[in-house]
Amino acid sequence: MNDMYYMDLALMLAAVAEAQTSPNPVVGAVVVKNNEVVGMAAHLKAGTHHAEVHALNMAGENAAGSTIYVTLEPCNHFGKTPPCTMAIINAGVKKVIVATLDSNPKVSGAGVTKLRSAGIEVEVGIGGVQAEKLNATYFYFMNHKLPFVTLKQAITLDGKIATVFGRNENITGKEVQKDVHQARARTDAILVGVGTVLKDDPLLTNRYAESNKQPVRIILDTHLRTPLKAKVVTDQTTQTWIVVGSDVTTSQIAEFARPNVVIIQLATRTIVIRDVLEELARRNIVTLYVEGGQRINTSFIHSGLVNEMITYIAPKLVGDQAGIGMLADLNVKSMNDAVQLKLQQVKQIGEVIKMTSIVGCG
Amino acid sequence: MNDMYYMDLALMLAAVAEAQTSPNPVVGAVVVKNNEVVGMAAHLKAGTHHAEVHALNMAGENAAGSTIYVTLEPCNHFGKTPPCTMAIINAGVKKVIVATLDSNPKVSGAGVTKLRSAGIEVEVGIGGVQAEKLNATYFYFMNHKLPFVTLKQAITLDGKIATVFGRNENITGKEVQKDVHQARARTDAILVGVGTVLKDDPLLTNRYAESNKQPVRIILDTHLRTPLKAKVVTDQTTQTWIVVGSDVTTSQIAEFARPNVVIIQLATRTIVIRDVLEELARRNIVTLYVEGGQRINTSFIHSGLVNEMITYIAPKLVGDQAGIGMLADLNVKSMNDAVQLKLQQVKQIGEVIKMTSIVGCG
Repeated sequence: MNDMYYMDLALMLAAVAEAQTSPNPVVGAVVVKNNEVVGMAAHLKAGTHHAEVHALNMAGENAAGSTIYVTLEPCNHFGKTPPCTMAIINAGVKKVIVATLDSNPKVSGAGVTKLRSAGIEVEVGIGGVQAEKLNATYFYFMNHKLPFVTLKQAITLDGKIATVFGRNENITGKEVQKDVHQARARTDAILVGVGTVLKDDPLLTNRYAESNKQPVRIILDTHLRTPLKAKVVTDQTTQTWIVVGSDVTTSQIAEFARPNVVIIQLATRTIVIRDVLEELARRNIVTLYVEGGQRINTSFIHSGLVNEMITYIAPKLVGDQAGIGMLADLNVKSMNDAVQLKLQQVKQIGEVIKMTSIVGCG
Repeated sequence: MNDMYYMDLALMLAAVAEAQTSPNPVVGAVVVKNNEVVGMAAHLKAGTHHAEVHALNMAGENAAGSTIYVTLEPCNHFGKTPPCTMAIINAGVKKVIVATLDSNPKVSGAGVTKLRSAGIEVEVGIGGVQAEKLNATYFYFMNHKLPFVTLKQAITLDGKIATVFGRNENITGKEVQKDVHQARARTDAILVGVGTVLKDDPLLTNRYAESNKQPVRIILDTHLRTPLKAKVVTDQTTQTWIVVGSDVTTSQIAEFARPNVVIIQLATRTIVIRDVLEELARRNIVTLYVEGGQRINTSFIHSGLVNEMITYIAPKLVGDQAGIGMLADLNVKSMNDAVQLKLQQVKQIGEVIKMTSIVGCG
């Protein structure tokens, strides 16, 4: 078997743990000796063994003189676990084949350098494109110090997210709800504006997905208008981070002293999306799923910091008079000036069309 | 071979002539004698031979004592051609198998009765469902005395058909344009409002389809504001019918005296969609393709007389401020009150989603 065969296996193992390792990337590793696989593993969860350590453990004495295929550069620093480079060196591995270098500044190149200086042969690049794709959100996070932002809406065919009359209106039905909760289970955090909290009092948890992973709930709330009896405050299932402006007073904040609530106060009176995202990145939010209303959607598109849009289009019409559009003012001056998306995927869920697109570059 | 086999063949032959026989239905016929096909044909164009006559001509002397499979009840009246019942009787056919009765009041049941009274065995219903589907627009037209209405729009993902700044804005690009012109080649008439004529001065012909069939252009124009120099007036490629209200004067109408222009004056001051459609049906418009702006879309949806919607969704965003929505006031009072469509088909054309849905009932 050639190198690509073993790297494909490592990539496949890595993919198994997709969306369960955050803020860590997914990583797969395969240990080969005398053309036989003697160890294989993936990193499964932040704080637990890295893929290399699992795979070397499985290989046991066979690790000596082996070749290890890793989808991401082995780490060289003490994090929640000891450095993988040390495990590889101690195991007597002869050759390391790495798909791609790590963007994490704590690793980036240092892992490879360490291994080489220990006399181990290292090759980088086999399966690199696939490996980067597999960890696209992680690489974006590391390179930009920003979460990978997915903007989600459910709209009518004529582009309305709600009517002016309703609260908690369901546009798309049960099947889509399940799909949305599946996405919630895969994201680090969900974000809405205080307007949504005041209007719909949502729980913002994952309740219909197979996984019971719960994302952090983030509320953008310049003046801290979130009611103390709001479900996102009273419900203890997961954390709620309320982002507020600089005008909010210490005593206002004190009222929210609860184990599951964190108030994040920005230095500015108004909330700037880039500042919020930078703060969330500092708090290890790699993926962010925005489920806001018109104001939040508009601010995010304006910020230019949305990576992906997921739009559920229901076959209904409400008209401009009754409907609330998904976006207010985008400062567009002609059709050529429109915000251009790049269509990635179209899927039918019952009667609803799920459209996934990339925003901006493509 | 059994009856269904031969009827399937007849249905297949009928389908070949789809969209080229209007205002006639498509019809296929197969003549079978001693388990061999001795004649087969379809009706190809209004004014030319019906399928039965073509097929019996092909069968020649073999028609005597044969069984003929016809997808639609043979006509019993003198139209542009003599009645098919006569041709069948004269040819000495022994048995007639009919997929479905004709809804045309001039035929409906009379054809079958005539054949039976001539001593010919007649069976009705084999392949009936498929036959009715094949001629869905024709049956709708015959049963309701209304054209089958398709409402088409090209919209941005946020439901806008244009910006407030532009004229002749292209939302969807070349590939979709070709698809639209293909649809124009298959319809009897295209309809727009005078607003579109004033704003965009369109030609409204089929220019990019393989077929060079040209639909009639219909302009709804209460006060006859269509300019004499508008392309729909000056271009002679096809007819233009301008529908006007009762306030328009004879001298105004006289100005439009041209071979390709017809002014249709309604009895009312304002234009009521149902009246327009009834008038178009009287003029043998079986299929109507509506390419209007917001006002026309809204009036048609309001009328409840749209059968099908074709929506091209482009992956762009313009926002409520800059965009013109596809629909104005639909008198919707809540999301549950929304006009419900039934999704029929989703197709991707390059970066654009083409969504076909049925309006109202499903």
